[in-house]
Order: sequence, then C-alpha cells, then structure tokens
Amino acid sequence: MGGTDQVRGTRRSPAATNGGVVITRNLDSDAVINLDHGDPTMYESFWRKMGDKCTVVFKGHESLSYFSNVKNPCWFLEPKLEDSIKSLHGAVGNAVTDGYSIVVGTGSSQLLQAVLYAVSRDQTTQMNVVSPAPYYSSYPEIIDLVKSGLYKWAGDAYVFDKDEPYIELVTSPNNPNGVIRGAVVNRDDGILIHDLAYYWPQYTPITSSLSFDIMLFTASKCTGHAGSRIGWALVKDKEVAKRMTKYIEVNTIGVSKESQIRVAKILQVVADGCKRFGSPDGDNFFEFSKTLMAKRWEILRETVKNTRMFTLPKYPLQHCNYTGDVTQGHPAFAWIKCKEGIEDCEKLFRGKNILTRSGRRFGSDPGYVRVSMVSKEEDFDAFIERLSAIQSFNNGDGNGIANGNGNGIANGNGNGNLD
Amino acid sequence: MGGTDQVRGTRRSPAATNGGVVITRNLDSDAVINLDHGDPTMYESFWRKMGDKCTVVFKGHESLSYFSNVKNPCWFLEPKLEDSIKSLHGAVGNAVTDGYSIVVGTGSSQLLQAVLYAVSRDQTTQMNVVSPAPYYSSYPEIIDLVKSGLYKWAGDAYVFDKDEPYIELVTSPNNPNGVIRGAVVNRDDGILIHDLAYYWPQYTPITSSLSFDIMLFTASKCTGHAGSRIGWALVKDKEVAKRMTKYIEVNTIGVSKESQIRVAKILQVVADGCKRFGSPDGDNFFEFSKTLMAKRWEILRETVKNTRMFTLPKYPLQHCNYTGDVTQGHPAFAWIKCKEGIEDCEKLFRGKNILTRSGRRFGSDPGYVRVSMVSKEEDFDAFIERLSAIQSFNNGDGNGIANGNGNGIANGNGNGNLD
Repeated sequence: MGGTDQVRGTRRSPAATNGGVVITRNLDSDAVINLDHGDPTMYESFWRKMGDKCTVVFKGHESLSYFSNVKNPCWFLEPKLEDSIKSLHGAVGNAVTDGYSIVVGTGSSQLLQAVLYAVSRDQTTQMNVVSPAPYYSSYPEIIDLVKSGLYKWAGDAYVFDKDEPYIELVTSPNNPNGVIRGAVVNRDDGILIHDLAYYWPQYTPITSSLSFDIMLFTASKCTGHAGSRIGWALVKDKEVAKRMTKYIEVNTIGVSKESQIRVAKILQVVADGCKRFGSPDGDNFFEFSKTLMAKRWEILRETVKNTRMFTLPKYPLQHCNYTGDVTQGHPAFAWIKCKEGIEDCEKLFRGKNILTRSGRRFGSDPGYVRVSMVSKEEDFDAFIERLSAIQSFNNGDGNGIANGNGNGIANGNGNGNLD
Repeated sequence: MGGTDQVRGTRRSPAATNGGVVITRNLDSDAVINLDHGDPTMYESFWRKMGDKCTVVFKGHESLSYFSNVKNPCWFLEPKLEDSIKSLHGAVGNAVTDGYSIVVGTGSSQLLQAVLYAVSRDQTTQMNVVSPAPYYSSYPEIIDLVKSGLYKWAGDAYVFDKDEPYIELVTSPNNPNGVIRGAVVNRDDGILIHDLAYYWPQYTPITSSLSFDIMLFTASKCTGHAGSRIGWALVKDKEVAKRMTKYIEVNTIGVSKESQIRVAKILQVVADGCKRFGSPDGDNFFEFSKTLMAKRWEILRETVKNTRMFTLPKYPLQHCNYTGDVTQGHPAFAWIKCKEGIEDCEKLFRGKNILTRSGRRFGSDPGYVRVSMVSKEEDFDAFIERLSAIQSFNNGDGNGIANGNGNGIANGNGNGNLD
C-alpha cells in the first residue's frame, strides 16, 4: 500500500548546466522534492513505449450496471480482471491462485478494511491488530479511522503479549524497510493477513509461490497504475471472501468497472510479455522495472557510501524463481538511517527540501527516514544530487546542510552532530 | 444511493406471442425479475444513440499517479470532473456550486461515510444518526458496518427524542417513496446531510437551486453510470471538506481516475445537451429520461388501478424550473402498498418471481414494497405483465396468485387475505 500525506508540488525549470556537465533533470535547486509518499510514476516510460498495446476505449453505453458477474459471490469483479490476475500470478510464480477466491477492492487499503471486517464481525470481543515495527505508517490510521468496535490497532507485534485474540499484518517485503517477513506472534488464536504489495520481481527475488490464507496485492506497486485504485485479495476461505465482498458492497457498492477493465488489460499485457526475456521489443515489464530499480539502488548505495552520513539495509542474495538469477532485493523504499548523533533524520532532509517520512511514523526511530525509490527520474536524480551535496559538507566545500534554507538541522533542534 | 442485495440472474427467451399480440420482451414466464435493487440500466439506449460522443480512451501510460491536483485540498479530484459537475448543476439549476468545495467519492455511499467521519471525529460523544422512516434501507447497514465509536444508527427521525447530538439524513426525493423532504428533528444541535441522489429532472420537478451545507449526488442515478462508482459532495465548510478528503484518503487513497475522467465527459455531454429542448438530435438526456420515466409511471399507475390490489403514492403538480412545465414526480422507485389484509407484500411478489424490497427494510410496514422503475425495458414490461395477471385473479380467470409457483401467499404464511 502507498501513503500520500504531505502532498506538495514540485517546481520545474529548463535543463541547466553545472560545471559544463548537462544536468538532465529540470528541477530548480530550491524546488521541494516529495519522496514522502510512494507515487510509482517511474514506470511511465515503459507504458509510453507500449504505445497502443494497453489502450482501452469506453463508449458511453458500456459498463452502466452495478453488476459484473452475478454468478460470482464477488458480484462486482470483472471476469477479465479475474482472468488476468490468475495469468499474472501464474506467469510470475509469486502466488497460488488455484482454489482461491478473488476479491477486488478500491486499492488494497480497502481490502485490508474488508478483511478486518470479515474476520472480526462475528467475534465477541474487539480484535487486536498488530504488525512488527517498523510497520507501514498507514496501518494505525486505517485501523483506528472510525474507532471501530470490531478491531483496534494494538501496535508493535514484537511486544504484543495480551491474552486476547489478534490479527497480525505480515507485510513482505516490508514497507518501509524491504525485509522479507514472516509472522512474529505465532499463537494458535491469531489470524494472519499477508500484505504482498511488493512481492514482485522488480523489488525482491521471487523465492516461492505463496499460499497463505489471505494475500493482498495492488496494481499501484505492481505496474505503477496507482491512479486506477485496483487491489485484489486471494482468499482461501470462501466465507471470508463473501464477508469481504459484503464490506465492499456496503462501503462503496463495488469497484470502478473502468479501472477494473483497464487494469485487466494491463496485467494481461504484463503476463504475456513477462514470459520472454531479452526480447528486442523490450516488452518484459519486470525485466525493465528490475533493471531500473537495480540501477537506482546502485546509485543510491554508492552515494550513501560516499556521504559517510547514512546507512542502508543489506538484502541477502537469493535465487529468483522468476528470473532464474541470484539477486538481492531492490525495495520500493529506501530505509535510510542517519549516523549516530543525528536525532531527526526527516528534519535533516527537509533542510535540503527533500520530503521523506520519519521513522517515528513507522513505530520506529526518528533516526530513520523512508524515501521513495519509485518517483519520476528527475526527482530521483535531484535527490541523489542533494544527497551528494551532504557528502560535500563532510568534505568541507561549504555547500552542506549547515547552509540549508533555514529549516536545516543547523538551525533546528540543536542536536545536530554531523560527525 | 442504490442497494444491491439479492443479486440474481434473469433468464431470457425469444420473443413470444400472447393471444396474437407480440410481446416485445423476451423473458421466460417463470424467469425471476429482479427489481429489488435500483440498477439504472434503463438509460442504455440513450447512451448507445450518443455513439462516440461520450467515448473516452486511456493509453497505458496515462493516469499513473495517485494525484490529480495537488493544489486542491481534495487532491484526488480530477479538474475536468470538477468543471463538469459545476456545468451540470448550472445547466439544470438544481444546486448552487459557487462557494462550495467539491469532494469526489467512490459512489455517494463512501461520501456519506466521509461526512459522518468529518462531522463526528472531533466530538466527545458518539453521534446519533437518524432519518425519517421510510428511510433508505442501506443507511443502518452503512452506519453500523464496523460499529464505529464516532457515530451510530439511531433509527427513525420522527421518534428521536434523545437529548444528545445528532446527524439527520435528509433524502430528497426520498428513497424509497419519492417524497420531497425537509429535516424533521429541527433542533439547533443537529447536523444535516442532504442526500440528493434523485434530485434530477427525470425524477422530480426542479423547484429551486438548493444550497444546503452538505449535499450528496451520484452519477449512478443522474446518468445511469452506476458501474463507474462516482459520487460527489458539495460542501459549504472547507474544514468539513478537508476532513471528508482525509476519510477517502485513508479508506481508498482517492477515487478511480478512469471513472472520474469518463464521468467528467458524460456529465459535460449531458450539461451541453440539456440546454436544448425538442432538438431533432434527441440529445437532451433529461428530456429523454423524463419522457421514459413518465411513460413507465403512466403504465404502472394504470395497471395498479386495474388490479384493485395495490396503491401508489401521489405526487403534487409543481412548476419545474428546468423544463418550464408543471409536472409531477416520477420517482426511480415505486413504493407500492398492498391492499389491507395482505401482510407481506414482498412475499406476494416473490410468488410471481418478482424480487422487490420489503417495506420492513425501510423501517416501515411489510404491507409495502419498493420496486425499481429504472430497470431494463424487458424487465419492466415483464413486471407489468405479471402485475396485470394479479388483476386477472380478481377477475376470476384462474391465473392469479393462488396458482403461483409454490412460494406465493396462498402457500405462504397463511395470512393471505386477498380482499
């Protein structure tokens, strides 16, 4: 799932030169770069290259009815979307679909709420919902939004010790830190929800075809079509799937048909193209996106190393069943830790007009920030350049954070220890 | 807002003859006709006639981002949709938009939940939500879905007498009975939400341009594009609009861009066409839809009269500012009352394989049913034919409800008194 707070614009300027080197990005040097949310706009060039292959057309008289398939318990699921979802998981090998019910949602946030309703509706006591820190910052907000009597956010799963029924959200790869995860509470009375938004080849090696009871996916992070708001759940228990459908029926009376039909087409194009590797057409989306992510991570790791200010998590080398390669993860977010002594990493970046999300928001330490790695190229490039400038402060060129725009740590909480 | 439970298929057969008269519908005589929900498929022929005027095309690289307009507090509202909504209300004259914030939702059900959150979030006590019976059957279900601690369904507004803060849902024209309504509790501490889904010229005379604090509309009932799941709220208080946006951000991270862009086009076509009356192009949607609704109501009233089994509400003649005519209402639902002695009207219709919604569901009497008037033509025609057959029972031709399919009232609860 994404996260979208702190919406801000980004000012752009014509391409500029810097010491004779043409800077391909076109951001003003004082423009705010918003890497707080994970808006996956980096894939645009791939979709542009696909031309009319993914084009969908809607005439005025089409898709009028509320209903998509009255024979399916999930009556608002477009049959074509169901087919594409199965094709795609089959082609990638990241999740089993045989024997599963598919429930479509307006993004995976809605599906999470649908699952919470489905598994807690008939309980006699309010369910505790936990997730190990650092956890996706929106979980507490989603769960406690309307102060439900069915469930409540109960915080970090690592410290959960109540003798009460609970639901554990297992996010793998994890948002914010990209780590592959399993359940941590491990009691018989727990219900597990697997949020697998990032379990796709561009982000992590695909090591097995998962078959958990409840698995959530979203087009936003898989193909970058966040504006369509399409998520899907693979659900083993038919009754849970029916109750999820009920939630979505009452919450929004189904899910946009236009979005479903469009995403069905896009997922099918991805599924068809992703079986071919090294094709001169370059129509393998995961080959394209994995190469791009790997390149960004390489640049980031090199830059971070040079700064001597930050550290990044390391991801193990694993065999990816999809590509056949041994590879490491390239998460959608960088989970950056500031050097010891810098207490507010988000503030440090804000001083450079880079919006990130503080570790505090993820139930973790403000010495960490989460930075989107799936932004537009110009934003990523500008981020890297400003990160490099922090390095140059260490090298004493006077352009570092101490000369920030007045919001930097030098003028901030007085705890800035840059060594 | 609609309502979609009891989803069932409708079997079709080739056109048949009955006593030499060709029956244009093509339903098997024992096919189930589902008029329980208000699926607005009746407008399909208009949209088909419009050809490519409303066609929208999406290429694979378009609408990727979560964001539509970062300068708008409702950051996921497509600017074109905002423009079309303003054009349409301006052309019809049913609601004021100047000075209002527009919030888009995944149908008006989501917007209702957004308003409830917005007005109750900062209250110290749980808010009571009321609506005068008969009220829209989904209100209790929506409001108590996850047992919110912020608000609770408190039933029929006519009998609400608690000395506690409350929210009143004013549905006008009302679902199920088509009546024009005002608030009934009328206390200073009340918050009013106006659900104006049916305040369009095909359903009711437009007597003024409304300017209530919070007004909800939906494309589903306005143009029939229910599958798109697009609703909008006109909100006077900017802070309420911001909090509504927050709800939708957390609930679904915005609203489908494809649906917004498509509905924007459709609303603009309606707004442009609806200024012309009597055009040979027949491109005035409200002229088309009002004529169709008036015809259906005329047929229904005539049939009901002949049966001597049922009664229908009467609607006052009023001057419609939009058409310039004096006209009565032609609601999207018929609120049918069975003759005294028939205690379960829904069961009576079920015996004829006609699915309707019992008055009980609307906080009213089971002697009433709500019947959709916006179905496909073949379903409406079959409904009328079966309704006529009930009349023939009274006339003693032996084809009446006593010979139903075994589910009829004669075999039912034993209370059937057909006189």
